[in-house]
Amino acid sequence: MKYPSGTSIRTFAPASVSNLNCGFDILGFALEKPGDVVDLQLNDSKEVSLKEITGDNGLLPTSVEKNTASAVVKLYLEQTGINQGVAVSVHKQMPLNSGLGSSAASSVAALLGINTLMGNQLSLSELLPLAMEGERLACGNAHADNVAPALFGGLVLIRNNQTADIVSIPIPDSLWVAIIHPDVSIPTREARKILPEMIPLRDAVVQWGNVAGLIAGFYRNDPGLISRSLHDVVVEQHRSARIPFFGEMRQAAIHEQALGFGISGSGPTVFAFCTSHAIATAVTTRISALLSQGDVSHQTFVSMINPRGAEVLEILQPEHLTH
Amino acid sequence: MKYPSGTSIRTFAPASVSNLNCGFDILGFALEKPGDVVDLQLNDSKEVSLKEITGDNGLLPTSVEKNTASAVVKLYLEQTGINQGVAVSVHKQMPLNSGLGSSAASSVAALLGINTLMGNQLSLSELLPLAMEGERLACGNAHADNVAPALFGGLVLIRNNQTADIVSIPIPDSLWVAIIHPDVSIPTREARKILPEMIPLRDAVVQWGNVAGLIAGFYRNDPGLISRSLHDVVVEQHRSARIPFFGEMRQAAIHEQALGFGISGSGPTVFAFCTSHAIATAVTTRISALLSQGDVSHQTFVSMINPRGAEVLEILQPEHLTH
Repeated sequence: MKYPSGTSIRTFAPASVSNLNCGFDILGFALEKPGDVVDLQLNDSKEVSLKEITGDNGLLPTSVEKNTASAVVKLYLEQTGINQGVAVSVHKQMPLNSGLGSSAASSVAALLGINTLMGNQLSLSELLPLAMEGERLACGNAHADNVAPALFGGLVLIRNNQTADIVSIPIPDSLWVAIIHPDVSIPTREARKILPEMIPLRDAVVQWGNVAGLIAGFYRNDPGLISRSLHDVVVEQHRSARIPFFGEMRQAAIHEQALGFGISGSGPTVFAFCTSHAIATAVTTRISALLSQGDVSHQTFVSMINPRGAEVLEILQPEHLTH
Repeated sequence: MKYPSGTSIRTFAPASVSNLNCGFDILGFALEKPGDVVDLQLNDSKEVSLKEITGDNGLLPTSVEKNTASAVVKLYLEQTGINQGVAVSVHKQMPLNSGLGSSAASSVAALLGINTLMGNQLSLSELLPLAMEGERLACGNAHADNVAPALFGGLVLIRNNQTADIVSIPIPDSLWVAIIHPDVSIPTREARKILPEMIPLRDAVVQWGNVAGLIAGFYRNDPGLISRSLHDVVVEQHRSARIPFFGEMRQAAIHEQALGFGISGSGPTVFAFCTSHAIATAVTTRISALLSQGDVSHQTFVSMINPRGAEVLEILQPEHLTH
């Protein structure tokens, strides 16, 4: 059932880590934190408007058509043929262009919000292509590797991006993630450009052996196999040069017994899989000291994999507003 | 405990299908049939000798050093430092150079035989590198994708061939395999030469998305996901041209509702995964008619995946021989 005009909703969608080293363009998982919050309020204007953006340091587009959150709300209403006024507010609570799926978090939160307000006209799976269009707007490529984890939660395989064939992969017990965001900007559009068009077949075989090992490791709940498989012989060599202290950060993570270390999405954020909260904290502490020494400002997060994905935080109906 | 001189042993090792389309060089599984039988008899000569080869139409090397079965027995004795005379007989019960791991079956059967006679000096995992050396001798490449399934049975992932990191993958319920061997010879050495050194990154991504889907499909016991994932966009296009009626055989298999169809190893044998014995039989019947019409002599097999691998069929000790 559709909510009445005047209703407002607050939704959250999580940051996500895509690629996981060997799984370039096919794997991603959602984090517990950080993430974005989006507020929508229904009104009688029959227009989608962008009311407020916070936490972006003025970097996000402010036109309704170019801001991903408002753009996907508009797309949703066009697709479902609903004529409805909505005011959109975006509260960025994570770094932009960081490799943590920032645009995906905003568009998924916005889509969950509008779909809930419209009485769940679409299923979560039907929201996916709309969120992917948001990605096309934000980074030039309608890819599911951040939106699918942000939407569904957990660890997801995008077996085929074109057909949006999404497979949920089990999350191993007590897997913690250390996240470090060195504060340098690498837009995804740029990051894709530096990849080669052709790669050696023998490297591809190493990579898909590791992909197979990683998937088997998740199903077997086998930290050793996950660790042995979590390597990237194809993409990392091209992208790591733009990330300050990449080699040193890896050494620090491995020194603290992380299962593996790599670039989150197209960077500059890096992540490490760890078998305990204590290890993940030790990794962020050690890397934080390293980056501070090198005068690189940064943020760190320690999180488990978020199994729930996007969530409704609050719905306020008109009668509550006027009381 | 080592068996006394005069003891003879008969072992069987199964044929195997490697690659499984998207899993080029990293996946393989063992069949219930066909396979090779090897007889070893201990004697007092302190030499490894090649007593008899049957079923090979005179095609296999007859020198002890070049025949894989006798060569790996020699290697085993050198490695374990045992001075022992052994007479080796090889009974080929499958086509040579067929893409069914014929050399792997012979060397694995021989290794299981000698290891059993020597009181299991080595574990199965320790036999693997010796069997891989047999592959180097037979086809120029010490690869595990046929020897690992022949030795351990089941469906195996070779995550890393150099470190022989082998992972056993669960076998889906009621998965049947249709095997068709068109009687044309493609030596593995030749088949490797026709592959390109460089491949497009975008094809590699499609391939490892399918590899991940295939592994997940096996763990989930999900025929639909296995079917969607069982594709090869990298190798098949180069190898299928040498296989008569390849496209027509695929059409026939899919027409009979096979989950997927592809080249076994480097061909010319092809395989189809099927959800029942009836479907697998329908596939071989239809393809057999097609090949007969085209005057291509051929053999067909219908088999489940063999979960056991190589087996000891019989041990005869001297007292039994003399009674």
